[in-house]
Amino acid sequence: MYRTQLILILLSIFLSFQTLAQTSLKKYVSLTVLGKAKETENMFHRVDTTKYPLIPKSVKYLLTNSAGLFVSFKTNSTSIAAKWCTSDKKSSSNMTAIAYEGLDIYIKKDGKWQFAGVGRPGTKSCSESVLVSNMDSSEKECLVYLPLYDETKSLEIGVDENAKISENTNPFQKQIIVYGSSIVQGASASRPGLAYPSRLSRNTGLNFVNIGVSGSAKMEKEVADMVSEMPGDVYVLDCVPNSSPAEIKERTKYLVKKIRSSNPIAPIIIIQTIVREHGYFDKSVGLRVQQQNEEIKRQLEELVKESVKDLYFISADNLLGNDHEATTDGTHPNDLGFDRMIQKFQPEILNVLKKHKII
Amino acid sequence: MYRTQLILILLSIFLSFQTLAQTSLKKYVSLTVLGKAKETENMFHRVDTTKYPLIPKSVKYLLTNSAGLFVSFKTNSTSIAAKWCTSDKKSSSNMTAIAYEGLDIYIKKDGKWQFAGVGRPGTKSCSESVLVSNMDSSEKECLVYLPLYDETKSLEIGVDENAKISENTNPFQKQIIVYGSSIVQGASASRPGLAYPSRLSRNTGLNFVNIGVSGSAKMEKEVADMVSEMPGDVYVLDCVPNSSPAEIKERTKYLVKKIRSSNPIAPIIIIQTIVREHGYFDKSVGLRVQQQNEEIKRQLEELVKESVKDLYFISADNLLGNDHEATTDGTHPNDLGFDRMIQKFQPEILNVLKKHKII
Repeated sequence: MYRTQLILILLSIFLSFQTLAQTSLKKYVSLTVLGKAKETENMFHRVDTTKYPLIPKSVKYLLTNSAGLFVSFKTNSTSIAAKWCTSDKKSSSNMTAIAYEGLDIYIKKDGKWQFAGVGRPGTKSCSESVLVSNMDSSEKECLVYLPLYDETKSLEIGVDENAKISENTNPFQKQIIVYGSSIVQGASASRPGLAYPSRLSRNTGLNFVNIGVSGSAKMEKEVADMVSEMPGDVYVLDCVPNSSPAEIKERTKYLVKKIRSSNPIAPIIIIQTIVREHGYFDKSVGLRVQQQNEEIKRQLEELVKESVKDLYFISADNLLGNDHEATTDGTHPNDLGFDRMIQKFQPEILNVLKKHKII
Repeated sequence: MYRTQLILILLSIFLSFQTLAQTSLKKYVSLTVLGKAKETENMFHRVDTTKYPLIPKSVKYLLTNSAGLFVSFKTNSTSIAAKWCTSDKKSSSNMTAIAYEGLDIYIKKDGKWQFAGVGRPGTKSCSESVLVSNMDSSEKECLVYLPLYDETKSLEIGVDENAKISENTNPFQKQIIVYGSSIVQGASASRPGLAYPSRLSRNTGLNFVNIGVSGSAKMEKEVADMVSEMPGDVYVLDCVPNSSPAEIKERTKYLVKKIRSSNPIAPIIIIQTIVREHGYFDKSVGLRVQQQNEEIKRQLEELVKESVKDLYFISADNLLGNDHEATTDGTHPNDLGFDRMIQKFQPEILNVLKKHKII
């Protein structure tokens, strides 16, 4: 018995030293947080909501979540670590903690961004994690994505003590504002960089800005004003899932016209809501989705009749495939669902950009 | 201020009544737990490990996790709920709580199993959740999968008070034993029924039995003896990820020969380990995977030379696609990764079954 205890004590001392060796022989730096529509006072917030006092509280709160934000740097370190703090909130049942309050890293390889590792959050609000190690010492371009569903309070990137690290500019060109629901914010991607706007950015080299506000994308007038003031080459509106048919009827035109008046030539792309997979059985859910999608189509047709130009429409047909396995909980796409959405979205969005000579 | 508090109190009372209305006006029943290789004393355990005193502690523990287990029933209820208890453990950072300690339900529709909803675990060890509601009252065949990574302590299915519910037999034919790592157990599927053996069962109508034991699939002699005693029409060995090259060299032949001696005609399918996505940068991880896969191939070739018949091999080539987005954390496939694995596994496994006239 004593022998077992002794072995356990020695093992825990060994493991502590190992963790220390892995994470603490590093120099840590703070880097500029990128991926926002405009600069913000608090570098970890997506929008300075103090400038928009009338937007709903839930939207204000959700814009403190760091969905879509990232840091960009070059380093020749063989190992990359991070220390970060978030709020005390814990992950929701339909998300991994890595996606909700963790990190992931991508490294440029043969001209493409390639996944290299994750930052696993611990049980407390501050975590330290090695993202990737045992690499060669060539200089690499790196992106680290911040937590999707938590407020990031601090972030430092750690490299080998003798390694070089320098801040890099935002590698993505142009600016595409994506305003939408939890699906835009990233529920239920399995890690931060798999939220669909971020995947589109890495795939295309274009800057898709995540203005996903969980269950609160309801096109309120004050939010429409805020979105319209974000400088954009294109606006993608994926806000149908959260809005009732009545809200879609009341609010779509104001949102679209407001964006158009602030941005006379930017194409506006409206996306129908994806099906809710449990809605095939739950008749009330199924009916709501059908009514939402009919109403948004009607609004778009009326806007076209009213001569609002450069509007585009992505229908919900087959967005999630036909095997019913592409959501986590019936509502939120899993990574299979996001992959299917991207296969449809990406060429349609790129076609619009080409047509308008934006790329 | 008082007014706000009063509104909050009234709202919380209203919500409590609503939850009560949704979940408690139900009759609850216990059902036989299916999906095991053999009957067990504790109906929620996958194997009676008391019969195998010499298997490693970690394997004993992991076989108490309810991965791959399910209940099967018919009901005309318009709403289906569940009450269940698990251990006090909480989800790991690379899994959703729904997958780790929650439930999901599938309903037969047009001859196919179709996802219909999830059981969301709460913060305590016992939960109550409506899986699906607002359905028509036709009789339906249903499957509810149990938590992948926790020990289930109890499970009751709830239906409308005036509805009928009756136990159904296991809808899957034959028995295919899948012995393997965390990837077999279901990390990082986003809900229980998306673990790959369960998806294969629903896709094919065949009973794929989940003997995934997280990080502990190391082919120990005592575990090999246990697996060989599980009655199977086919054995799938996906245990390379957890075994070191030396363990693969030492242990593969004993495992395969033991299964063959207990089951003279059952085909045995050996799968190479999927790539570890961070191993493209982490040279030490990359090298280990390469050595594991070379060693398992060598062992298989030697077994064939030693005249062990009916061995099959699934290579790791392109199991996860080539965009490096198909894992949650570099090691564990996300649902996109599982989908790609299934696209390769399913036809290869079905071909073996057809060749041997098992189907």
